[in-house]
Amino acid sequence: MSADRPASDFGPDLPTRAQIEAMDQADPLLLMRRRFDLPGGLIYLDGNSLGALPRGVAAHLGEVTRQQWGDRLIAGWSEGWMDLPLKTGALIAPLIGADEDEVIACDSTSINLFKLAAAALLARPDRSVILSEEGNFPTDLYMFDGLARLASLAGRPIHLRTVSADHLIDALDEDVALLALTHVNFRTARAHDMANLSAAAHQKGALCLWDLSHSVGAVAVDLHQSGADLAVGCGYKFLNGGPGAPAFLYVAKAMQNKLDNPLAGWMGHRDPFAFAPGYEPAPDIRRFACGTPPILGLSALHQALTLFSEVDLEALFEKGQALCDVFLSLIARHADLCVLSPTKRGARGCHVALAHPDARAITGRLAARGVVVDFRPPDIMRFGFAALYCRYIDAYDAAMILNSECCVSPQALADGGL
Amino acid sequence: MSADRPASDFGPDLPTRAQIEAMDQADPLLLMRRRFDLPGGLIYLDGNSLGALPRGVAAHLGEVTRQQWGDRLIAGWSEGWMDLPLKTGALIAPLIGADEDEVIACDSTSINLFKLAAAALLARPDRSVILSEEGNFPTDLYMFDGLARLASLAGRPIHLRTVSADHLIDALDEDVALLALTHVNFRTARAHDMANLSAAAHQKGALCLWDLSHSVGAVAVDLHQSGADLAVGCGYKFLNGGPGAPAFLYVAKAMQNKLDNPLAGWMGHRDPFAFAPGYEPAPDIRRFACGTPPILGLSALHQALTLFSEVDLEALFEKGQALCDVFLSLIARHADLCVLSPTKRGARGCHVALAHPDARAITGRLAARGVVVDFRPPDIMRFGFAALYCRYIDAYDAAMILNSECCVSPQALADGGL
Repeated sequence: MSADRPASDFGPDLPTRAQIEAMDQADPLLLMRRRFDLPGGLIYLDGNSLGALPRGVAAHLGEVTRQQWGDRLIAGWSEGWMDLPLKTGALIAPLIGADEDEVIACDSTSINLFKLAAAALLARPDRSVILSEEGNFPTDLYMFDGLARLASLAGRPIHLRTVSADHLIDALDEDVALLALTHVNFRTARAHDMANLSAAAHQKGALCLWDLSHSVGAVAVDLHQSGADLAVGCGYKFLNGGPGAPAFLYVAKAMQNKLDNPLAGWMGHRDPFAFAPGYEPAPDIRRFACGTPPILGLSALHQALTLFSEVDLEALFEKGQALCDVFLSLIARHADLCVLSPTKRGARGCHVALAHPDARAITGRLAARGVVVDFRPPDIMRFGFAALYCRYIDAYDAAMILNSECCVSPQALADGGL
Repeated sequence: MSADRPASDFGPDLPTRAQIEAMDQADPLLLMRRRFDLPGGLIYLDGNSLGALPRGVAAHLGEVTRQQWGDRLIAGWSEGWMDLPLKTGALIAPLIGADEDEVIACDSTSINLFKLAAAALLARPDRSVILSEEGNFPTDLYMFDGLARLASLAGRPIHLRTVSADHLIDALDEDVALLALTHVNFRTARAHDMANLSAAAHQKGALCLWDLSHSVGAVAVDLHQSGADLAVGCGYKFLNGGPGAPAFLYVAKAMQNKLDNPLAGWMGHRDPFAFAPGYEPAPDIRRFACGTPPILGLSALHQALTLFSEVDLEALFEKGQALCDVFLSLIARHADLCVLSPTKRGARGCHVALAHPDARAITGRLAARGVVVDFRPPDIMRFGFAALYCRYIDAYDAAMILNSECCVSPQALADGGL
């Protein structure tokens, strides 16, 4: 076995398919897979891009459409729709170590990033820098840059400063208003130490904003314990809320009535249906809402989230890491294949990124063999392991198919990798 | 008949119910009502708040959920979802006198107002005022005010200036960057003269932004002919896109690649899936998109919009005005009831606003008798007439029930109103 092969529970010998099947049989989460409508014969390892369809969602959407919208019409707003952003946020809260009244589901991740970064700039008017990471998800950087352009309109410029992950703490100075990072990197799955970086930001008087898009529902996150001020996240990846599902945002309780959301739509007003000419923000997390809530998308997301209430979250996050470990222990290493993801548990999200010069073509060949992963330019394949519905046998089969598509002979694999 | 009774086609005598039924039978749009799932026995006059459910939408949503999301999973993005914001915008374009490549469905009305107003401020950096109308829909004013707070962060203040409708032209000066108005007022249904006001804004070097939330699908709008630069509108009122449906925005072709959208999300990038670190805006209307498109909501809206492709728009808008006229001609006037809406065709949207000191209670009594209208503080009832599914008999019956609930005797009505 090559030196860079990660630790696995299998010892020096690679596991057999039967051993892996036994792991699935022993998995307390195995039955959750039946709660998803997964196409037969597919190994779906792209739940980090778009989560699979939970079985109850289509029927629930039918009910929302026919009974709530069709039959109840405008009455729907007073019969549950108005509360749906908060009710949905309340189901996300336990996944990220937040209280129910600290999370609201609304808008897109991009818009929520803008709201909270803008609120941070308004709260630190004597500072002019948003600090982020090179290689952060592009929309995060684009939104901060757009915010800087807009906030600079009338005078002193606001800047987006990006540095590599290892230089973040050095780049924190007294001019930084906000440290804005994605917890788990969308390419490499590398996870930042939230507590450490949040503390470093606070030490310099900056606020911190965490994008949890690749963390929420995938790995344990404890916003309270890690001292996060602000967070956002995506509803359509590991939360399984459907294509383009509403996103969410978190604001620590103590800051909620101190921050000014400049995307001050009517749903953030203390009393939207007073139709008052002047904006008076809600005294709580609702002030970070904006326009009319998207009931169809929110209903799908809310229904999907109920699955998380049924499982032991510790077991779920443990399984996600174990799936990645199994996969990493089985892929054959050779000169052209580079493991970009940390191999150590806890330092990584729930996907494994591999670089290969032929990554685009290999992704296509995997798809032709029923293994759905995604390609990220220039040369990255991402294998996502959503523990609610992925099995150990999926990780095993995907690794074997990948090995054969990377032109590794079964003999070479049996010999312990290249 | 009192002097303020509007002109009607019925002459001095009030029409009989049979005469009204004959109008429905002669209506070329009558069969469109069957394309909606309307609860039996209800007179739904609230399509200006939430449009009714078009019959095909629930089945289409089921297909999008089960077949597109459930079966095709991530492949959905390359099999139609990415184009859905533009395809949906293309169905809205003919309703507002725009070209297909000038409209995109995205985000909420509030967010779209912010994008376009911010773009206008960035395009007029030497000007500091957004001019709007007192009594505009609150979210419009709130968003402009939030934008002003944010853009003022670093120096010279940006202001929101509001004046009454009759003083708008006087309030236009060389410091106005943007004239931002709602075409049809949400309370009174009074319609602005778009061409006249747009020209006045241009004369002072300002841009103009029109909120079409209460116009689109209800009255004829011609953005090209009226010289509008920018527009936004709502998807869940007369467009019947469902609760919290995505909104839309319009940018005149010639301005699209000149304006900077500071809500610069990845879907506005020239090539979102390049995941480039720097933002390069799309050269067309797509630059005004932001986050990942909400496919469930967009699919419902797109399906609902196909109904407009089947009708003669001139006949539709004519019928909307006629429904209001019938209603206005039948309501009995008395000292407590004040007609807030213009009675002249063309000066009004597709709802009729009545003020009454007991408006809230009367709204409740109407609902108990199956007539759904809405109440707007402090004392306004809005009767909305969505011509795709409202009948003349609905206008007749609603007027008769209103008259009886306003304590007007049938004899007083027969005598020609009070």
